[in-house]
Amino acid sequence: MKKIIVLGSTGSIGTNALEIIRHSEGEFELVGISGHKNHKLLIEQIREFKPKYVSVGTKEGYEKIREEFPELTVYLGEEGLKELAGVKEYDILLTAVSGAVGIEATVEGIKNEKRIALANKETMVAAGPYINKLLKQYPKACIIPVDSEHSAIFQSLLGGKRDEVKKIIITASGGTFRGKTLEDLKDVTVEQALKHPNWSMGRKITIDSSTLVNKGLEVIEAHELFGVSYDDIEVVVHPQSIIHSMVEFKDRAVIAQLGAPDMKLPIQYAFTYPERKVNEVIEPLDFFKLNGLTFERPNTKVFKGIELAFRAGRIGNTMPAVLNAANEAAVDMFLRGKIKFLTIYEILERAMERHIPVEIESVELIKKIDKETRNWVYKEYER
Amino acid sequence: MKKIIVLGSTGSIGTNALEIIRHSEGEFELVGISGHKNHKLLIEQIREFKPKYVSVGTKEGYEKIREEFPELTVYLGEEGLKELAGVKEYDILLTAVSGAVGIEATVEGIKNEKRIALANKETMVAAGPYINKLLKQYPKACIIPVDSEHSAIFQSLLGGKRDEVKKIIITASGGTFRGKTLEDLKDVTVEQALKHPNWSMGRKITIDSSTLVNKGLEVIEAHELFGVSYDDIEVVVHPQSIIHSMVEFKDRAVIAQLGAPDMKLPIQYAFTYPERKVNEVIEPLDFFKLNGLTFERPNTKVFKGIELAFRAGRIGNTMPAVLNAANEAAVDMFLRGKIKFLTIYEILERAMERHIPVEIESVELIKKIDKETRNWVYKEYER
Repeated sequence: MKKIIVLGSTGSIGTNALEIIRHSEGEFELVGISGHKNHKLLIEQIREFKPKYVSVGTKEGYEKIREEFPELTVYLGEEGLKELAGVKEYDILLTAVSGAVGIEATVEGIKNEKRIALANKETMVAAGPYINKLLKQYPKACIIPVDSEHSAIFQSLLGGKRDEVKKIIITASGGTFRGKTLEDLKDVTVEQALKHPNWSMGRKITIDSSTLVNKGLEVIEAHELFGVSYDDIEVVVHPQSIIHSMVEFKDRAVIAQLGAPDMKLPIQYAFTYPERKVNEVIEPLDFFKLNGLTFERPNTKVFKGIELAFRAGRIGNTMPAVLNAANEAAVDMFLRGKIKFLTIYEILERAMERHIPVEIESVELIKKIDKETRNWVYKEYER
Repeated sequence: MKKIIVLGSTGSIGTNALEIIRHSEGEFELVGISGHKNHKLLIEQIREFKPKYVSVGTKEGYEKIREEFPELTVYLGEEGLKELAGVKEYDILLTAVSGAVGIEATVEGIKNEKRIALANKETMVAAGPYINKLLKQYPKACIIPVDSEHSAIFQSLLGGKRDEVKKIIITASGGTFRGKTLEDLKDVTVEQALKHPNWSMGRKITIDSSTLVNKGLEVIEAHELFGVSYDDIEVVVHPQSIIHSMVEFKDRAVIAQLGAPDMKLPIQYAFTYPERKVNEVIEPLDFFKLNGLTFERPNTKVFKGIELAFRAGRIGNTMPAVLNAANEAAVDMFLRGKIKFLTIYEILERAMERHIPVEIESVELIKKIDKETRNWVYKEYER
């Protein structure tokens, strides 16, 4: 039985992970969870799974949980997440929290020599080189990606050796606005941007998917996770999101992982790797219900997210962290109606232009740059 | 450098294999070849590749080659093929000959403890259980499939462990007559049946593809090659022939191998496995030229080839050999205009009904049953 800690257990990935654990027939034990503000759900999860450790985002929730579960070890806030990642008695840390705190928790998990089931984007995007250095220092630790694209690449890579890889092919749904022109996008509303065709996701990530910034960040993540050169990563628009990503090997064989659009499969695989296990809650893919799988070149002239990420990734060092921070602030402002859709790209470009990248020597540095970049965006664009 | 013998070097698979070797930059050395009647091409191949051993199908060719290449070891006829497979100084035997002689050559290769790059259908269809027993006796020998479907399955299986396989999904183009009704097929001509949409193949195999008997035989082959139960093998019609086959694992992850419809990739993979090598003659797959990948349930009521093969496979022992032999004779008669298209199915059913299956204790037995079955078909249906 594998002992699991889920950071962000009340979020979308978190609840899917608990669904996997719930139906694992004793394969997994949930020993720790963390939630930010949703105390009600967190308390329900404590009642059901009886974890030993809990971390909660707010003082109010902290008091509540301490009162109702006096035998529980309860941690508080961002510091609490790190403490949770630092406890000894677990095997796998699922980092399904967003933001820089996910990096710090991952760092704790690596130093703790655990398996990280990585669902925090910032870790490899903003701090990839730093994390990779750390992984060399702690060779017993490892990272297994949870993101459906990176999990598909990870699985497809089993079809050959690393030095036999010709190209990583990341598939993209193309987002809500696939096929639109720059003119079409000038005045799109938040509501229009939030209608994603295939995946039901949070608001922030749905916007990232419609700008294709999300796909760009996945390119950076793939580069850091798999050590593949940016020249050997390609994005292919595949609107049906059935082929989750692919690897082309030197001999031109393409290996792909397909599945229903459901995060439960990659979550479980990050837990069970190198094994695969039956789990009744994972839906099979029904080929006879598919309406044809298509492929298109992404329109990088309209959707600049991919190109901007390639640029940031190739510059390296702290530049991807700036791209990510500027994007967080820009999308936040778009969601609050403060800027137009296409201004997101302008913000990313300008934020990168004004940044002089330096080597990532600590997570503190990333946090500092993250904060500074966001502040600049808000100051420059908030009215 | 790997030393290779190609049985059937003048055929479609054979010439593709030589093209791979020609452009392998010294990775492979062709030490032996065999051809049946096409002496002209065989002689050209001897001049180009300078093999040490040659086997030829006819007395006439034998004399010619002996005269022109006095230093060469030349073998003759079916016996010659076995002698060629039995020479010591090679690593890989590509069995790209059709018929029972391919089984005998494979047996020689296995006893010789070589790698068999298997492109002879009869080996696993007609003699699967016998071959598998032999492979246990000669554990240094191994079989790597060359058929695009089985190569794709072989590659996809790398994504997990054998006991984690839920299902093998063999893709089928659906053949020339996909979508037709029984009524439509009543009076189809040989010319109509020979128009295959995706692959350029020999006449016999194109007919097998249009009856779906070919796909049925591939089901039996997959069962024997990969030890997967018939209940866990599914045929999915995929008219574009881009996904060459797939494996669904227990956790519902589907791993697939995609590629351009070109035999050179699976041929080379059977040579290089477990490695993958660059070869300029293998075309990459261009996703942006694809018109959408679709999937359909095969119409087993019209195209009985799959169902008949499942029936023969489940009965086991010598029954698949009877199915194969009856099909050889039936297709031959169809190609000669002696029977109608749908009569092929009738012949297969009747041949199976009259056969009492027995354990395969020798290749001789398979040959005897093969001959007896063909004779019955010809006697019963030839006018």
